Amino acid sequence: MNEAAILAAREDRKKVAQFDLIRSIEKVMLGPERKSHLLNKKEKEITAYHEAGHALVSSVLPYADPVHKISIISRGRAAGYTLKLPLEDTKMQSKNEFLDDIAVSLGGYVAEKEIFGDVTTGPSNDLQVLSALARDMVTRYGMSDVIGTIAMEGDGGRAMFGRGVVDREYSEAMSAKIDGEVKRIIDEAYAKALAIITDQRKVLDAIAVRLIEKETIEREDFELLLIANGITPKAKKDIEHQPVV
Amino acid sequence: MNEAAILAAREDRKKVAQFDLIRSIEKVMLGPERKSHLLNKKEKEITAYHEAGHALVSSVLPYADPVHKISIISRGRAAGYTLKLPLEDTKMQSKNEFLDDIAVSLGGYVAEKEIFGDVTTGPSNDLQVLSALARDMVTRYGMSDVIGTIAMEGDGGRAMFGRGVVDREYSEAMSAKIDGEVKRIIDEAYAKALAIITDQRKVLDAIAVRLIEKETIEREDFELLLIANGITPKAKKDIEHQPVV
Amino acid sequence: MNEAAILAAREDRKKVAQFDLIRSIEKVMLGPERKSHLLNKKEKEITAYHEAGHALVSSVLPYADPVHKISIISRGRAAGYTLKLPLEDTKMQSKNEFLDDIAVSLGGYVAEKEIFGDVTTGPSNDLQVLSALARDMVTRYGMSDVIGTIAMEGDGGRAMFGRGVVDREYSEAMSAKIDGEVKRIIDEAYAKALAIITDQRKVLDAIAVRLIEKETIEREDFELLLIANGITPKAKKDIEHQPVV
Amino acid sequence: MNEAAILAAREDRKKVAQFDLIRSIEKVMLGPERKSHLLNKKEKEITAYHEAGHALVSSVLPYADPVHKISIISRGRAAGYTLKLPLEDTKMQSKNEFLDDIAVSLGGYVAEKEIFGDVTTGPSNDLQVLSALARDMVTRYGMSDVIGTIAMEGDGGRAMFGRGVVDREYSEAMSAKIDGEVKRIIDEAYAKALAIITDQRKVLDAIAVRLIEKETIEREDFELLLIANGITPKAKKDIEHQPVV
Amino acid sequence: MNEAAILAAREDRKKVAQFDLIRSIEKVMLGPERKSHLLNKKEKEITAYHEAGHALVSSVLPYADPVHKISIISRGRAAGYTLKLPLEDTKMQSKNEFLDDIAVSLGGYVAEKEIFGDVTTGPSNDLQVLSALARDMVTRYGMSDVIGTIAMEGDGGRAMFGRGVVDREYSEAMSAKIDGEVKRIIDEAYAKALAIITDQRKVLDAIAVRLIEKETIEREDFELLLIANGITPKAKKDIEHQPVV
Amino acid sequence: MNEAAILAAREDRKKVAQFDLIRSIEKVMLGPERKSHLLNKKEKEITAYHEAGHALVSSVLPYADPVHKISIISRGRAAGYTLKLPLEDTKMQSKNEFLDDIAVSLGGYVAEKEIFGDVTTGPSNDLQVLSALARDMVTRYGMSDVIGTIAMEGDGGRAMFGRGVVDREYSEAMSAKIDGEVKRIIDEAYAKALAIITDQRKVLDAIAVRLIEKETIEREDFELLLIANGITPKAKKDIEHQPVV
Repeated sequence: MNEAAILAAREDRKKVAQFDLIRSIEKVMLGPERKSHLLNKKEKEITAYHEAGHALVSSVLPYADPVHKISIISRGRAAGYTLKLPLEDTKMQSKNEFLDDIAVSLGGYVAEKEIFGDVTTGPSNDLQVLSALARDMVTRYGMSDVIGTIAMEGDGGRAMFGRGVVDREYSEAMSAKIDGEVKRIIDEAYAKALAIITDQRKVLDAIAVRLIEKETIEREDFELLLIANGITPKAKKDIEHQPVV
Repeated sequence: MNEAAILAAREDRKKVAQFDLIRSIEKVMLGPERKSHLLNKKEKEITAYHEAGHALVSSVLPYADPVHKISIISRGRAAGYTLKLPLEDTKMQSKNEFLDDIAVSLGGYVAEKEIFGDVTTGPSNDLQVLSALARDMVTRYGMSDVIGTIAMEGDGGRAMFGRGVVDREYSEAMSAKIDGEVKRIIDEAYAKALAIITDQRKVLDAIAVRLIEKETIEREDFELLLIANGITPKAKKDIEHQPVV
Repeated sequence: MNEAAILAAREDRKKVAQFDLIRSIEKVMLGPERKSHLLNKKEKEITAYHEAGHALVSSVLPYADPVHKISIISRGRAAGYTLKLPLEDTKMQSKNEFLDDIAVSLGGYVAEKEIFGDVTTGPSNDLQVLSALARDMVTRYGMSDVIGTIAMEGDGGRAMFGRGVVDREYSEAMSAKIDGEVKRIIDEAYAKALAIITDQRKVLDAIAVRLIEKETIEREDFELLLIANGITPKAKKDIEHQPVV
Repeated sequence: MNEAAILAAREDRKKVAQFDLIRSIEKVMLGPERKSHLLNKKEKEITAYHEAGHALVSSVLPYADPVHKISIISRGRAAGYTLKLPLEDTKMQSKNEFLDDIAVSLGGYVAEKEIFGDVTTGPSNDLQVLSALARDMVTRYGMSDVIGTIAMEGDGGRAMFGRGVVDREYSEAMSAKIDGEVKRIIDEAYAKALAIITDQRKVLDAIAVRLIEKETIEREDFELLLIANGITPKAKKDIEHQPVV
Repeated sequence: MNEAAILAAREDRKKVAQFDLIRSIEKVMLGPERKSHLLNKKEKEITAYHEAGHALVSSVLPYADPVHKISIISRGRAAGYTLKLPLEDTKMQSKNEFLDDIAVSLGGYVAEKEIFGDVTTGPSNDLQVLSALARDMVTRYGMSDVIGTIAMEGDGGRAMFGRGVVDREYSEAMSAKIDGEVKRIIDEAYAKALAIITDQRKVLDAIAVRLIEKETIEREDFELLLIANGITPKAKKDIEHQPVV
Repeated sequence: MNEAAILAAREDRKKVAQFDLIRSIEKVMLGPERKSHLLNKKEKEITAYHEAGHALVSSVLPYADPVHKISIISRGRAAGYTLKLPLEDTKMQSKNEFLDDIAVSLGGYVAEKEIFGDVTTGPSNDLQVLSALARDMVTRYGMSDVIGTIAMEGDGGRAMFGRGVVDREYSEAMSAKIDGEVKRIIDEAYAKALAIITDQRKVLDAIAVRLIEKETIEREDFELLLIANGITPKAKKDIEHQPVV
């Protein structure tokens, strides 16, 4: 909120409006815009389809957060980004939400692969985040029936004081089962993302084309685009009425 | 007791009553109340059923401690809590008590899953505690017949001076057996908790509904609610007559 | 001996008698008596049977040391204790002595389980000590025919300078064999302890009942109790004639 | 660019020409020329065929970068080198590009083995780089269908603060699958490089012979040589128009 | 030699005689005599047979060093000792010498077991030394045909700078083979020691009886005892003519 | 070269002749001569055959360096040594050269075993060096077809900053394959060395006998000895014309 207040002050506006808030989230999470760093034509296309993949899957899956903005203007290390915000402030996340989040994260990778028949290093951060999430589901939250309600790791994790090492407590046999469950969860989410992107190829193209044209799509535009393609946008909630941090 | 005395002093009462004692336990263990941090409606329902699950299983199992208070007012990181106190001050705990404790810990998870068909990150701390307990039963207390009366780890644990590492002494084969026993213990406790929650669904609903209404249920009310549903409360003992720490 | 001299001085006696010596051993090994920390009735019973188990097995097995005192007065972290002293000062211990020592250590656990059908956290220290002993038999003293006369670990153990780690030199296959032998040794000692406690249930009850009544049994009383039950006490030797440390 | 500017200044030229730019890249990446350190005749031949192998494979494979210069003048630790530059500045790399890069890296090894029936320590750095690349494809970029879209390692890698160790999180079973995929990727790239070097043996000889004669081949000469042997050079782009770093 | 000179000086003798030399070796290696620390009768017998076992096996096996002195006077941590000295100063040791050395080291353990049907903690240092020796034969000296002429470990061993750890380079499969070979070597040496002690039981008894009587046997006496029992002592060489360190 | 210049200066000669150069290499690599430390007769024989083994295998195998000097005068920790110098200064080594180097290193061990039917600790340094070399062939240089062109370890090796540890990246399955290949390479080199030593036993004896007589054999003498036994010495090149370091 601080960051948002500074931005509003600079531009001499009294109210920290939704506009400022979103801009401040973008800046804190992704770094300032890098207009000078232009993507070449091929990269722009790849990035557009990648972000369209995230946005489309997020719009279709019931437990995923609605999309507030999509952009292919580079920020920090990211070539583009899709900003999603939850409908309500929540303390807890559920298994169904995690499963849809993983599918949304895979949306970029799946779109690249389906459209270009090749994948780039672009999704590497997506994979890192979704893999950690899938592993946590299995080892911390009891969300795999095969493993059951066992927590494998304490809050302190595996590293102690940043220098020692705590050997994992469980056996190789258990470790292999965990790997199997993590893979199953990701593979099922992949199938879900793939089905959406294949079924709604027309919408994916529409989002990507719009992004290549305009570089950024705001929520209203995006929802019109969804409606035009027969997808009902998620219930809208005024972001100004709920603190995000 | 110190904390209790301070609270009593603040409110100008002479005697450190049971009321103060319980409030001080809550404050030391969970942190101060956070009335400003309101749960949304869905979270309130989930939390109510989660705590009702703990409370119901604790009330039915013979070796579990009786419930003194249930609350869905957030404290620290916990969305809600169920306060149990032993009938007598004890130095030792038994295998039967551990087994029931694990089932009680699973009560929250099981209730969430049965009622909502989904589970949240809420039980993560429960799982961590019950997993450590089940592992200690197997590796420190000789409470698994398959493993037998072998202690796998010394008091110093695996980390030495906070920086070195002591490789576990036992083989991968033994480690797999330990994992199997830990899982068996937890799965059996799960089945016990599930049976109670399924059989006494009506009582679970009653506790949850009351919690959503009132946010907090004290011992007397809780016991009346149990009796109304055909469950005999555990023998009551005046908490003022036995020091808790 | 120093400690014994201080105790004798305090009570104005000239000679460091056996009485002082035993009291000093108790104090150094277990900490001062904690009369204020009373066990509840149930715990008193469990502790009495636990100590009776140690004392009975120790009295029956030929290579175990004779019992000098049994007590259920809490000392330090121990709820009770059984004081055994060797008949002669020795530098070496033999395989037969180790095997009987392990059975004696299991006597407490076995008694708890047989009498109450449940086991407590009480024997945790016993298990830790006997497990380390059984492992040393196998990995340091060549006392397992399956493993043979190989020493697996040097004097420096696994930790080097308290901070590094020396990975065990032997294979997983050898480690599994070691675990198997450690388990076999402990399981056989368990069977030995169980047979004694089952066969001599009457004596066990007699010792436990006397302990609950008197809290402490000195050597003479204990030997009379054994004789009354048809067990010949071990050859008595005057403890004052041999230095213990 | 700095380095290039210094070189241009020294030779009193106003414009940082392509010539300077390439020389600066060579100097920064490989160290200064070492004219005094002459290779013996045999080594010169081996090095010529090794570099010819890289250059030929790079020229044939569609996703590899075009060759700008080949040299067998020793620089730093390298006996020779092949300078490749991408046609366009890019932020992302794709799976197809990685696969061709690995084949290009193997070109030197394959050429040595095919021509001399023996291999030297020369390719050791090539193998190190291509092995790390193949492993990253499998464990960071989701570029193996067998492993799927799982990231095995975070950005922080396995070493923490240069002194601790983070044990890999995955099982031995997963590790064996990863090794299998890494090997498969490298073996397939090997087959691709081998096919090119066998099929285009005449071109390989021509490049090597020219290198032994002249020690260095610049881009124009190299492309004429390719054309003379029926290979179409990749689309040329003026290097001065795109910043390299 | 320094230590020997000091001893000679103290006793006012001009020449550092063999007598002083042996006494100095004893003192440096074992610590000063501890006449005050008397073994009890049983321990004296065990120690006498233990040392007789070492001395007998050493006298029979062709590659073992001849015995110079046997004693059951405690020195440092050792209850007794057998002093052997090589016939010649050597820089190298051979496989046959190592094999006999291991059998000699086992002589004490075997004697204890054969005579008393029990084994003590006494041989623990013997086992440690012979196990390290057998492992070195396999992993450093190429003395196992199964493993072959591979050295598994460098001079720096497994620990680096006393604080890091160097993970063993070889596989679990190789580690199991190494363990198998180490065990085979020790088991074969055991059989050799056992055969000697069984076959020459009369000599063993004679040595042990003499030791119990006199506490120490010097070389001349020992050789007479061997001759009397039909064993030819090893060629005698005057120890004063060859420096030992 | 520095060291050689000093030696020449001491002896007042102007030119750093081949004689000085070789002496300086000996001194830097092996330490000064230790005339005082005499080997006993048996050790002299073993050492003579050991060095003769290295020299013979080196003279027969095509990719091994020619022998410049053989000596059984102790230097530093080595009982004797065989000085080989490459015919030409080279930057690269090939697989064929490594394979012959390993066989040459085994020549000493094989000779000891064949002649004396026993092996000593003497070859321990040879084994260490050849094992590291064979492992590098497999894990760094792509010289095993079974493993292929994968580099298993970076330049930094397994230890980081001399204190941390980098866990090997590859699986146990891969580790077992690597061990298998390392063993195969060494076993094949062993067979090669054994065949030479068996076939050329007469030459081996001749070299050893000469060494025992003279303690040192210079290149010219050695080559005459080879010729006399029907072996053609490698092409001679004047060592003064090529810098060695």
